[in-house]
Amino acid sequence: MSVVELGRFMEDLAQASGKAILPFFRAQFALEDKARGGSPFDPVTEADRAAEVVLRAMIAKAFPGHGILGEEFGTEREDAECVWVLDPIDGTRAFIAGLPTWGTLIGLTRHGVPVRGLMHQPYLGEVFTGDGHSARLRGPAGERTLRTRRCTDLGQALLATTDPRLFAEGEEAERFRALEGQARLSRYGTDCYAYCMLAAGQIDLVVEAGLKPYDICALIPIIEGAGGRVTSWDGGSAAKGGRVIAAGDPRLHEAALKVLNP
Amino acid sequence: MSVVELGRFMEDLAQASGKAILPFFRAQFALEDKARGGSPFDPVTEADRAAEVVLRAMIAKAFPGHGILGEEFGTEREDAECVWVLDPIDGTRAFIAGLPTWGTLIGLTRHGVPVRGLMHQPYLGEVFTGDGHSARLRGPAGERTLRTRRCTDLGQALLATTDPRLFAEGEEAERFRALEGQARLSRYGTDCYAYCMLAAGQIDLVVEAGLKPYDICALIPIIEGAGGRVTSWDGGSAAKGGRVIAAGDPRLHEAALKVLNP
Repeated sequence: MSVVELGRFMEDLAQASGKAILPFFRAQFALEDKARGGSPFDPVTEADRAAEVVLRAMIAKAFPGHGILGEEFGTEREDAECVWVLDPIDGTRAFIAGLPTWGTLIGLTRHGVPVRGLMHQPYLGEVFTGDGHSARLRGPAGERTLRTRRCTDLGQALLATTDPRLFAEGEEAERFRALEGQARLSRYGTDCYAYCMLAAGQIDLVVEAGLKPYDICALIPIIEGAGGRVTSWDGGSAAKGGRVIAAGDPRLHEAALKVLNP
Repeated sequence: MSVVELGRFMEDLAQASGKAILPFFRAQFALEDKARGGSPFDPVTEADRAAEVVLRAMIAKAFPGHGILGEEFGTEREDAECVWVLDPIDGTRAFIAGLPTWGTLIGLTRHGVPVRGLMHQPYLGEVFTGDGHSARLRGPAGERTLRTRRCTDLGQALLATTDPRLFAEGEEAERFRALEGQARLSRYGTDCYAYCMLAAGQIDLVVEAGLKPYDICALIPIIEGAGGRVTSWDGGSAAKGGRVIAAGDPRLHEAALKVLNP
């Protein structure tokens, strides 16, 4: 499969997962339906599973030798050269609350390195893609190249994180707060959308902890393709998740690492 | 002007303000253009002003006797029977960060009571409207009536607030945290969008402090029109802003007030 065909295949994955998920977004039956006997209906879990089933079937058909790591149904052939890393709904709280800032994450790793990534927000009709060398957004306002913006000064930086309570109280939370205290302003409640806005030159820093590989793998080629840098807090690969820091400007990344590792 | 004509006029206001604002949303020149001499270019302030100028001109032409209270250009004829209350961009941090959860708020008060409200998210193409008796959403998924959902138990409630740091440290923050601690889960970073999702039956509680009248007036007829209740923390009118609590279920509102006022 050529690079172009691979890109089209990933778009097909995005469209198929979007069709599986959207009927559950803002579904009115959501929390009313507790009378079915057994556990209450959980729209986000149902949507997550419906989408991952579709994605796994399409990948298995197109690439029977590839591995798959997904949030809902675990790992298949994790030692394969190429492994797909899937999170059908990143941002479950946003999804539950009806906010359009969740996204479907579809990543491809080769020998453990993320080489292609896609984030799809089907309610907005936005698709962010990247291959580590370039990154693009296609959305309601058309299509454009994504470029991070220059920002070398922490005091000028706009920082985002999904929830300040994700940092373990003690040393981890203190390190985050030290960095947050130096930023121009910080914004909460962002999930995968913040990394895409970093790639788009709107946000300068995203700092998180407790991530799973499927929370970040798809985003790495988008961030790097737009000119940004994303690593663990100790400067290593972010592909395994855990504590992650992304910066639009590599010089800001360096400055932020110094604050996180005093 | 009939009720129907008034509704159309408010839609016209929404479309006109959206056209004024959208060119500034995710504008790439945003933070690069510091060389113009004088102050740096601030896209959100420029967009806020451009929209408010348009809204004021349209209102002054259609209703020369009405008052106007706007975020950017102050008050005109505040003692008029009918006063328009305008916030072109509620959620400036979301706007700056490129997140699509800001909104344009257009409210109409009569003798100080909010009687009509509209929230417009032009990037999403969503318009939320209410008149205290009913509320509607028109968006990419079509048009529908808004109804809050039943939720009588704080332990089942999904709570939203724009930023936990908005509560003044001490008694105000402690009262908020007491309520947050009883909720099923809480979500940050929501601005006006949370009130609309409360009207849509996705969120059960929104609790905030430090609001201005233009942050809340337009939302009151939407929340009440969808079956919810919105007041100050002491149970009085929310129209003046300050500390505000909205609940989708009036019984939940009552339970939450007890926690906020121990």
